[in-house]
Amino acid sequence: MLSEFSLIDRYFAQRARTNTRRAALGIGDDCALLAPAAGEVLAISTDMLVEGRHFFPDIDPHALGHKALAVNLSDLAAMGAAPLGFTLAFALPRPTEDWLAAFSAGMFELADRFDCELIGGDTTAGPLNLCLTVFGSVRQDVALRRDAAQPGDDIWVSGTPGDARAGLGVLRGEWQVSEADATQFRRALEYPEPRVALGLALRGVARAALDISDGLAGDLRHILERSNLAAAIDVDALPVSPALARLPREVQLQCALAGGDDYELCFTAAPAQREAVEAAAQQAGVRVTRIGKITALTSPGAAPAIAWHDAAGTPLNLTLQGFDHFHAD
Amino acid sequence: MLSEFSLIDRYFAQRARTNTRRAALGIGDDCALLAPAAGEVLAISTDMLVEGRHFFPDIDPHALGHKALAVNLSDLAAMGAAPLGFTLAFALPRPTEDWLAAFSAGMFELADRFDCELIGGDTTAGPLNLCLTVFGSVRQDVALRRDAAQPGDDIWVSGTPGDARAGLGVLRGEWQVSEADATQFRRALEYPEPRVALGLALRGVARAALDISDGLAGDLRHILERSNLAAAIDVDALPVSPALARLPREVQLQCALAGGDDYELCFTAAPAQREAVEAAAQQAGVRVTRIGKITALTSPGAAPAIAWHDAAGTPLNLTLQGFDHFHAD
Repeated sequence: MLSEFSLIDRYFAQRARTNTRRAALGIGDDCALLAPAAGEVLAISTDMLVEGRHFFPDIDPHALGHKALAVNLSDLAAMGAAPLGFTLAFALPRPTEDWLAAFSAGMFELADRFDCELIGGDTTAGPLNLCLTVFGSVRQDVALRRDAAQPGDDIWVSGTPGDARAGLGVLRGEWQVSEADATQFRRALEYPEPRVALGLALRGVARAALDISDGLAGDLRHILERSNLAAAIDVDALPVSPALARLPREVQLQCALAGGDDYELCFTAAPAQREAVEAAAQQAGVRVTRIGKITALTSPGAAPAIAWHDAAGTPLNLTLQGFDHFHAD
Repeated sequence: MLSEFSLIDRYFAQRARTNTRRAALGIGDDCALLAPAAGEVLAISTDMLVEGRHFFPDIDPHALGHKALAVNLSDLAAMGAAPLGFTLAFALPRPTEDWLAAFSAGMFELADRFDCELIGGDTTAGPLNLCLTVFGSVRQDVALRRDAAQPGDDIWVSGTPGDARAGLGVLRGEWQVSEADATQFRRALEYPEPRVALGLALRGVARAALDISDGLAGDLRHILERSNLAAAIDVDALPVSPALARLPREVQLQCALAGGDDYELCFTAAPAQREAVEAAAQQAGVRVTRIGKITALTSPGAAPAIAWHDAAGTPLNLTLQGFDHFHAD
């Protein structure tokens, strides 16, 4: 029986000590040393995941390891930054070898896929809590910021948002679906795919960007607020998966617009960039869909609102409030 | 009555948004952007603090804010890195305005003193947990590493370690002291002073260094293990505060050698650097004391051990085990 310390050493520290390609010194010294690529800056994001808020107590630890890193890599994707490394701090009530083995496997399979090295960390006993800080490299002048949208920009979204929220609804018994659809929804919820390649390909093509963690409607508002602009969205243009399309239209819209945890990218680009956006998406192997336009504020002091309409241009009055998603903080 | 979100915005996010001197973009975008000084690399350290492990439930939130940042700045000090910024992720059960006001005041008073900017963060509901990641800038070739000690090096310590452990003993009722001494001990425990100026002044002067978080004896072993060397320590040379000197000699040694939470620096330097070390300490306004020597391993495969002796050179057999300090993980 290995001690807690030996287990953590086996599954994390030992591995981090061999990560010396990028980080001079990692676990084992007071600090890790890390530099962005020449001429670039470090993009840094931190996320804390808590049981009951961000995942269910019975989550598969392999999925938890994946998701904890995925949501952080998604922040790098939304900046157009190339992953370099991450630190992992976690509190665990009573780690078992099975749990640590599965958790670390889920995390490192994703880390390896994106060439993102564990460079440091901290562990302690305590109620389950995961805090990751992720580091990427990006040229400051092409970083995809939230405040860079311009009137007339197209609004794009990657993938087919809504499946993660549909998966939460299945787990909560809010709706019944086939076993195959349930599996797909649950996978979207537990194994989100960070759109790193798309973010990189969009540098110099897109203007503003962010990742959808809290729902397309709410997150798009962050771009509007930071850019001081408004938007018009064609809800009939929203891409939904075939599985989600089998649920009632009302549920589709709520999942696609107000459901969180998708980690698709929402971004704006000048209409002149449409071919370049499509080329970037093809290069990244991700579907992208044009769903609306950035517009000027109706008056200088107006709130940065979203106007919803259908394919015919008829205004819609959507009520998205009260449809809570997983981590409603 | 402000909502939780408004409170966090008032005490943290608002402030971080104005921190744009160093970090292009901070809270409010997907990532903060940060670069080390020209020709330098980023030194990165992360620490997670949990109630009951690292602080008592009834800790003054002002002290908690100070200490959470101080232990991270101490890691930068131990590398000889200049503070740039930090991210703060925390889970709170039920934040009150009083608590957040005091916590943020304790944290930002220290941050301002060391010109270290909050550049990003995350907040969630959950059992109290603080995760800070701190960023400094250092030239890679003069960073104070743990693996750089050499046989014949002097071993130095800053300040007067032991007071923090003495303070824990007072809180636990392990020993009785005067009210003035109790206040001093408690201050050492709750308001550790990160030795940033000393770390900076020791670049190019000291060889190996670390900060004492878990006790001088245990932490010095990290240098020995990483450098594959041994040490001889003169316990009579250990600097103790006048207050600690009023406790029994046995308690003094245990507090100074096995007590954690002091955050003084322990470092090695060539004997030819003695004047330079003293000059660095004077420049930093910190006392430093020479307490021993780095020695070669007795045989190639031997464990990196510490040999204790008194001022006359007589070997001592110290038993430091079983004297637990605050965060025995």
